[in-house]
Amino acid sequence: MDIPVDEDRLREDVEANAAFGDVDADEGRGRTVLCGTEPNRLARERFVDRLADAGLDVTVDAVGNVAGTWAPDSANPDAPAVAAGSHLDSVPEGGIFDGPLGAYGALEAVRAMRDADVEPDRPVVVVSFTEEEGQRFADGLLGSSVAVGERSVEEALALTDDEGVTLESALEDVGFRGEGVLDASDWDAWYELHVEQDTTLEGAGVPAGVVTTVTGITHCEVEIEGEANHAGATAMGDRTDALAAAAEFVLDVESAASEVVGSSSESAVGTVGSLSVSPNATNVVPGRVEAGVDVRDVEYESMETVVAAARDSLERLEAERGVDTSVERPFDLDPTPMSERLRAAAHEAGDAVGIDTIDLHSGAAHDTMHVADVTDAALLFAPSRDGISHNPCEWTDWDDCAAATRVMAGAMASVATE
Amino acid sequence: MDIPVDEDRLREDVEANAAFGDVDADEGRGRTVLCGTEPNRLARERFVDRLADAGLDVTVDAVGNVAGTWAPDSANPDAPAVAAGSHLDSVPEGGIFDGPLGAYGALEAVRAMRDADVEPDRPVVVVSFTEEEGQRFADGLLGSSVAVGERSVEEALALTDDEGVTLESALEDVGFRGEGVLDASDWDAWYELHVEQDTTLEGAGVPAGVVTTVTGITHCEVEIEGEANHAGATAMGDRTDALAAAAEFVLDVESAASEVVGSSSESAVGTVGSLSVSPNATNVVPGRVEAGVDVRDVEYESMETVVAAARDSLERLEAERGVDTSVERPFDLDPTPMSERLRAAAHEAGDAVGIDTIDLHSGAAHDTMHVADVTDAALLFAPSRDGISHNPCEWTDWDDCAAATRVMAGAMASVATE
Repeated sequence: MDIPVDEDRLREDVEANAAFGDVDADEGRGRTVLCGTEPNRLARERFVDRLADAGLDVTVDAVGNVAGTWAPDSANPDAPAVAAGSHLDSVPEGGIFDGPLGAYGALEAVRAMRDADVEPDRPVVVVSFTEEEGQRFADGLLGSSVAVGERSVEEALALTDDEGVTLESALEDVGFRGEGVLDASDWDAWYELHVEQDTTLEGAGVPAGVVTTVTGITHCEVEIEGEANHAGATAMGDRTDALAAAAEFVLDVESAASEVVGSSSESAVGTVGSLSVSPNATNVVPGRVEAGVDVRDVEYESMETVVAAARDSLERLEAERGVDTSVERPFDLDPTPMSERLRAAAHEAGDAVGIDTIDLHSGAAHDTMHVADVTDAALLFAPSRDGISHNPCEWTDWDDCAAATRVMAGAMASVATE
Repeated sequence: MDIPVDEDRLREDVEANAAFGDVDADEGRGRTVLCGTEPNRLARERFVDRLADAGLDVTVDAVGNVAGTWAPDSANPDAPAVAAGSHLDSVPEGGIFDGPLGAYGALEAVRAMRDADVEPDRPVVVVSFTEEEGQRFADGLLGSSVAVGERSVEEALALTDDEGVTLESALEDVGFRGEGVLDASDWDAWYELHVEQDTTLEGAGVPAGVVTTVTGITHCEVEIEGEANHAGATAMGDRTDALAAAAEFVLDVESAASEVVGSSSESAVGTVGSLSVSPNATNVVPGRVEAGVDVRDVEYESMETVVAAARDSLERLEAERGVDTSVERPFDLDPTPMSERLRAAAHEAGDAVGIDTIDLHSGAAHDTMHVADVTDAALLFAPSRDGISHNPCEWTDWDDCAAATRVMAGAMASVATE
């Protein structure tokens, strides 16, 4: 279906939203919108106003998830809805597209459907989830975790920030502690439009990507224990240098992921993102290192290959360098395949209006991962210039924003009228 | 000359001194004695009392260096003195021998000389230098830097700790802001006895070492700039990972120093002791690393070999990994050879009483490095169990303490009666 979206209307929404929590950046345009803060209140209130302006019936649930329902006469009010959206919060000094493009893109899709006289058989719901970035209260994807029943309302509201403020009181402060729970399992379908945060679309010159799978994620916390010693008085042969051992480990993880990319799975990544050295003094041989490892892929098996190589590396370092090592794995999430039906609808929507679409995977986590646990879900990407995100330099051209939104609108219209 | 020292008397001094600033250690016996603190006052006052008890004429100079002069009738009061000593301050939770063994060992040498009816031709001076460890006011070797004229009294007294307290007011607080300046260039000779902080003597089963050279020290501050990026969304081939580059650098420095040890100089050491990663989050590809490198050897040329290899490594990493790098070299000290005359006197003193002595180098810096700039200086070592120092587990057997002190006493007596 061709649902022509209004690029100017979409742009006005994203730009107006960008004013809330805007930061003074050397380059680009950034914002800091943490959950339950004043900028978040302003962003939420504007979103609610625009949903209402579009004639949607707005609800706010107990954890602040906002939903606007369009249920014209054509729709069976009891039919499972087609939902779409994203989030309005940001990381500190984040970009203006990450989240808002999907929330306002979903609203624009509904406005465009109405403008195109689409008569849906089922309700269409526009959603903004609470605390997707997890910068204040949790590890992220908070609102969607409640909407899919993975976390209870009570548990979520009791979460505290670094100052001991609960999510409940932060939501009350901004007037977004609502009632009931948005239930994603009631939906027939879910679409989320997001910026890619990598360069696949930019490299291919394509304005819209259809995610096949959101990669699984494993985090390993590694400790390497050597012996701290005087850097001058300890001969090279007498050392058990925890940092030299950790250096081999960092390179082993990099090699293991690169080898998987060269053989079984192009999408595998392995990163040692954090490393802390003790005592961390120039004139002391390092005695202890803690490292944080992030491993992701669309295939759980290749994630396991990288983790196994990391374990082998530590075993070898124990034997060859005399260090003691340990690994904990506090976080392990399977890959999440997206709905074939909704992916096909997205490709068809692009084909129908001559907008190129390609398949790609998502290495970043999104609320859609949660929603996919309870209903059919799809994730669409718009191009990110240079793959930059979580940064004021994050940028997506307005015509790409519009093209990707048009693909989503077409897919939503098609699914809603089936 | 045989100057039998009193092991019990020496032990009583070191153990009594260990009570000041003593810490509750799981294992061993530790102390925290920072310059100008209450434990430092108590340690200084006891030392002054013991010097006076031994009949020495005590002075305290403007930066708190303490000196006790023994000038019996035999000595020409105008002749350049034989001086010996070390320091009483410690690192936080340091050991009980590092410093005090040399200060009280020098006092014991004088008492033993007097007990043995030695009649020196020149005065003998027992010294404790201020702030050797550099934990509160400076980089270390503070008192000796003033005593050799490398730093002015005014400059030293104006140094401040992290709370903005000056050395001058800290010394006034503990009653050790004296007058004048202890002038090391007035001395004919200087001996310092210290624990080895490595395992050469322990490995050889020898109670006293005679240092040939104190190694030079170079510190390099290295920055490696890559590109911070999403650990999930950035493909392995699209990364400029600053930590992976830094890992290669750490291993290159280790290899370079080990290669020098295997070829031109056994004493060379190269250490990346500190490493800081930005943004240091498990799920972000590291964008920037700062590393601190420590290079030492008895030959400046081999230090240069290691530094050149470190620079080559960074150049290679720029070419191969696309990182930007920079190196600063804020600290560069030549190796310091010890006096042949005083070393020979020490070996002869050992031979005379059947105490084995061996030559070895010092990889650690000591006040003796400064004194050697202005007069003949020698550094003697006693064994350290497992090479451990700056730690409550630092340990030297009491009979080794006495044997090494006896070697120093014999050498001092010989030099003082030449």
